[in-house]
Amino acid sequence: MTTPTTCLASVGTALPGDPVDNATLAKVLGINEDWMEVFIGTRTRYFARDLGTGEVRWSLADLCAQAAEKALAAPDTDPAEIEFIVLGTATPDTLMPATVNQVADQLGLDQLPTFQLQSGCAGAVQALDVARSMIASGRFRTGLVMGGDVCSKHLDLQRDLSAAAPGDLVNHVLFGDGAGAAVLTDEPRGQRLALRHVLNRFTGLGREPGQIIEWFGLADRHDDRQALIEDYKAIEESVPVMAVEILWEILGELDWGAEQLDYLLPPQLSGRMTRRITEELDVPTARDISCVADTGNNGNALPFLQIEKLLERMSCGERALAVAVESSKWIKAGFALEKI
Amino acid sequence: MTTPTTCLASVGTALPGDPVDNATLAKVLGINEDWMEVFIGTRTRYFARDLGTGEVRWSLADLCAQAAEKALAAPDTDPAEIEFIVLGTATPDTLMPATVNQVADQLGLDQLPTFQLQSGCAGAVQALDVARSMIASGRFRTGLVMGGDVCSKHLDLQRDLSAAAPGDLVNHVLFGDGAGAAVLTDEPRGQRLALRHVLNRFTGLGREPGQIIEWFGLADRHDDRQALIEDYKAIEESVPVMAVEILWEILGELDWGAEQLDYLLPPQLSGRMTRRITEELDVPTARDISCVADTGNNGNALPFLQIEKLLERMSCGERALAVAVESSKWIKAGFALEKI
Repeated sequence: MTTPTTCLASVGTALPGDPVDNATLAKVLGINEDWMEVFIGTRTRYFARDLGTGEVRWSLADLCAQAAEKALAAPDTDPAEIEFIVLGTATPDTLMPATVNQVADQLGLDQLPTFQLQSGCAGAVQALDVARSMIASGRFRTGLVMGGDVCSKHLDLQRDLSAAAPGDLVNHVLFGDGAGAAVLTDEPRGQRLALRHVLNRFTGLGREPGQIIEWFGLADRHDDRQALIEDYKAIEESVPVMAVEILWEILGELDWGAEQLDYLLPPQLSGRMTRRITEELDVPTARDISCVADTGNNGNALPFLQIEKLLERMSCGERALAVAVESSKWIKAGFALEKI
Repeated sequence: MTTPTTCLASVGTALPGDPVDNATLAKVLGINEDWMEVFIGTRTRYFARDLGTGEVRWSLADLCAQAAEKALAAPDTDPAEIEFIVLGTATPDTLMPATVNQVADQLGLDQLPTFQLQSGCAGAVQALDVARSMIASGRFRTGLVMGGDVCSKHLDLQRDLSAAAPGDLVNHVLFGDGAGAAVLTDEPRGQRLALRHVLNRFTGLGREPGQIIEWFGLADRHDDRQALIEDYKAIEESVPVMAVEILWEILGELDWGAEQLDYLLPPQLSGRMTRRITEELDVPTARDISCVADTGNNGNALPFLQIEKLLERMSCGERALAVAVESSKWIKAGFALEKI
């Protein structure tokens, strides 16, 4: 038995509503637009909630189903062939049912295994990793993999932010909402994008979390404890270093030279941070595929948005490498793609 | 290449503090003890929170780490051999970091893939399913699988329940907290419990959820919307029917006759419901392995508590079948074990 070559046959993405620019967001939150331009470097983002009324217009399930429908409508893919579904997210609609099952319902898929991975920036990579193992086990041939986040669930539109500290403001301007999906197959089809390697490794032993996001239940929801805690200093220090380590580890695993890399998909924190990390990754021959400056940091949607952009340019025989860092408890993640 | 026989080499469990009996819980909640005996049929449960003060004494990570330490201390297992970790839960400590990473930290494990599956009663089975695929892919030999829940996160100790409707009361008396763990290997070791089959199938297309559990974030935590919604009528009607279907499907997959089954691990809803389902499953030759009447419904800990009890009795050559039903969006789950 030869190990199957797991391939991405198609990709789809979904962003809710119209892009929200810095001028609009600055006005809603009562903060300085110039600060957003300079310190965040993100131009637009998309929100599943109406900024004016607070009304939730799209659930995570809605966005995932939209992205999946696009991936499933691509040439050479067929919803009837989907044998399992994996979703990676940090912001499920509810704790139960898992959002992946609401997506299955919206897609009309039934009688198949569904999995939902709870993860921050590494969730999409973890979903690819689980799907790859399922296909490599020989028990499945075709699966649907999704990643998405509705970060605006944490966006407090009632708060007056005019006197908020920069570290607090960052949480309000960095994030966005969105979802992405890919059909994975055990042989080259459709886009024929071979998944050459997946790196997904916890590296948080003895390290303080860089990011904590709490949820509140029935009993404790009126507690005063802080819901979002970020150590942006640790993130700024560690993520670029870890990104470089991930790049070289994946290249080493595949015995690829950096000069053989045609595209680089760097971590998508913010427009500014991503530019900085791309410089540190220092692969001048590889073209940079980034989206965060236009989409906002929509978590587990990002790798799919990057792959979609990649596919517009990539030719047969070209290679791409994606790097993701989860700062919550420090996970190294990434993957390598080759168009065959 | 022959497919490896995935085996459970060891199992460990953890229950927080002392058992809380019906008299104690009835007094704390201001409800009728006799009703609990008759309609729920659960005698004791364990809580990670102090019922008097409300203080959280154990996190889900604490309970999972305790259970895992026991599994890893068993003969023929070695923490240094663990190559990946999978946790199934419906009640993570935080949304980020995923609890599985806090457990890894407590266990001193590092530099390995970690996965956390968001799921209700099917989470432990899904964790076994992912681990089985990872081992069957040939990329891994030994993994740590965990399931656990801290349901008391939803227990509102401030509320006066003396006038609450039965459907509301059920949520306060049915549940408990706990965790379980198993070391999975690619060859028979330790307890030599071969995982012969895992069933994990979404069957919720077009069906209303039987159970919804909301979480609240920074922005919406003071909303008035209901946090727990259960359709106990649908659960009472559907779970026994689905349990019978699961039993016969797994037997059919393995070409096992019901009379060849030595042990049956039925779904663990409550003492009363589990007795009813066991009757409907109707495998008189198989001994029933249940724990819920003593442990309370602690979600994804239950299958591990049942396996631990099973191992006290099981002899070489004997067979066991476990059935689990997730009522949130209707997942059929179960697995078959054989001591070899």
